[in-house]
Amino acid sequence: MTTHELVQQIKKKKSFLCIGLDVDLEKIPTHLLSKEDPIFEFNKAIIDATHHLTVAYKPNIAFYEAYGIKGWQALEKTIKYLNDKHPDIFTIADAKRGDIGNTSTRYAKAFFSDLNFDSITVAPYMGEDSVVPFLEFENKHTILLALTSNRGAFDFQTKKVDGEEVYKKVLQTAQTWKNHHNLMYVVGATKAEYFTEIRKIIPDSFILVPGVGAQGGSVSEVCKYGLNKNVGLLINSARGIIYASSTENFAEAAAQKALELQQEMEGVLDKM
Amino acid sequence: MTTHELVQQIKKKKSFLCIGLDVDLEKIPTHLLSKEDPIFEFNKAIIDATHHLTVAYKPNIAFYEAYGIKGWQALEKTIKYLNDKHPDIFTIADAKRGDIGNTSTRYAKAFFSDLNFDSITVAPYMGEDSVVPFLEFENKHTILLALTSNRGAFDFQTKKVDGEEVYKKVLQTAQTWKNHHNLMYVVGATKAEYFTEIRKIIPDSFILVPGVGAQGGSVSEVCKYGLNKNVGLLINSARGIIYASSTENFAEAAAQKALELQQEMEGVLDKM
Repeated sequence: MTTHELVQQIKKKKSFLCIGLDVDLEKIPTHLLSKEDPIFEFNKAIIDATHHLTVAYKPNIAFYEAYGIKGWQALEKTIKYLNDKHPDIFTIADAKRGDIGNTSTRYAKAFFSDLNFDSITVAPYMGEDSVVPFLEFENKHTILLALTSNRGAFDFQTKKVDGEEVYKKVLQTAQTWKNHHNLMYVVGATKAEYFTEIRKIIPDSFILVPGVGAQGGSVSEVCKYGLNKNVGLLINSARGIIYASSTENFAEAAAQKALELQQEMEGVLDKM
Repeated sequence: MTTHELVQQIKKKKSFLCIGLDVDLEKIPTHLLSKEDPIFEFNKAIIDATHHLTVAYKPNIAFYEAYGIKGWQALEKTIKYLNDKHPDIFTIADAKRGDIGNTSTRYAKAFFSDLNFDSITVAPYMGEDSVVPFLEFENKHTILLALTSNRGAFDFQTKKVDGEEVYKKVLQTAQTWKNHHNLMYVVGATKAEYFTEIRKIIPDSFILVPGVGAQGGSVSEVCKYGLNKNVGLLINSARGIIYASSTENFAEAAAQKALELQQEMEGVLDKM
């Protein structure tokens, strides 16, 4: 998917919501557990109920790997369902990968070519040659961790390197990499006040924003400092939407929570 | 496995070799491709031919993920084979994971409890709460990326934070984390001259050293600066061993390459 297509979708749906498909068998409604593939059934129901409200879905790969082969089967079925039924929706493999060049090439092939995700999250610690193999895929997007939503972000990311914070160094350095137009960035909603500085370095890029809801971030704060002329934000909510209810009506409850966020976003877009 | 058991194995085998099981179907002998599970058959042959020369095996998870469900099945069979036949051998899931707390807990469960690996490699960028969930598993080892073997290591890891390089900050900060005795570290063989400084910060820890062979690092250089009183090194070779030959005698050729490294290591240990 091109960035232009993503922007068009945002305008059409009046939403820049991303729904995190972080499926935990201990949290999904118990009536699903007797199904052959409870994880996929849960995702399918969530997707069917929310696809008109969201522009992106983001399975966190850890939740699937935790169930071994059954988890991978559920992931494959989920991404296939999305690509078949909703090819207009942006898909994010939240994998936080990154390794030496020949290994990153393997990950890129797995998530971009084989599973056909539109994007993948990647960690920057190993530098340019660990990220560039992902950037070679045209119309695929590599979402680089910059400033994450968790407390540990303050351990290294906000420390000063040559007078500037590590996460800023990451943003600046990444601008020099080949095919850097295929980059997006992760910045946590819990750190809304940092967006002003970040937008000075990456005015035009899309930013994936986790941390709204369970982690305490606010949509209005993020928008205040993070919006750009193409919106430029994908705000993720996982637990707050998909676990809104554990009854048989879980999908309707999830849609209600997604609608509340979509309406808040529509209000923001109307004022642009 | 305890660190003491690992040290005992090193002394018994006179080896601190780790063999990287980075299986690429385009590189393995073609006669294996007609088997039901070529990846596992390849690994089994390598393990059968080299287990007396090596103290650790390290599958890089990217190579398995690249083959989707078949890759995961091969990984599960490989780790089960190792745990059944060679429970004395240290196993490393080279996964370079790291995510917010509840997600890292998922990864830890997948690799430590379900697959029963002895250790996993983890990236430090997201800080303490992304690593500590791994450290909670007793007699399991979390191998934190410090200074990697690739060129991109110079993009961020060697940049100075508060007057000290990022990788040193990572090593120092990690010493303050709960259960830090379960930590080991990754330092690339291509950066042997850094080991003196690194040993000042982590004199007693084990260091996993990739980058010997195809990447250009040298065993003698690493040992000169990196050994400690318990040896404290696991030196990894992957391509240089497992792809020594693409004929039907590939396993014997791999054993020959492993033997050469083991003998070099025996020479080092005899002088300690």
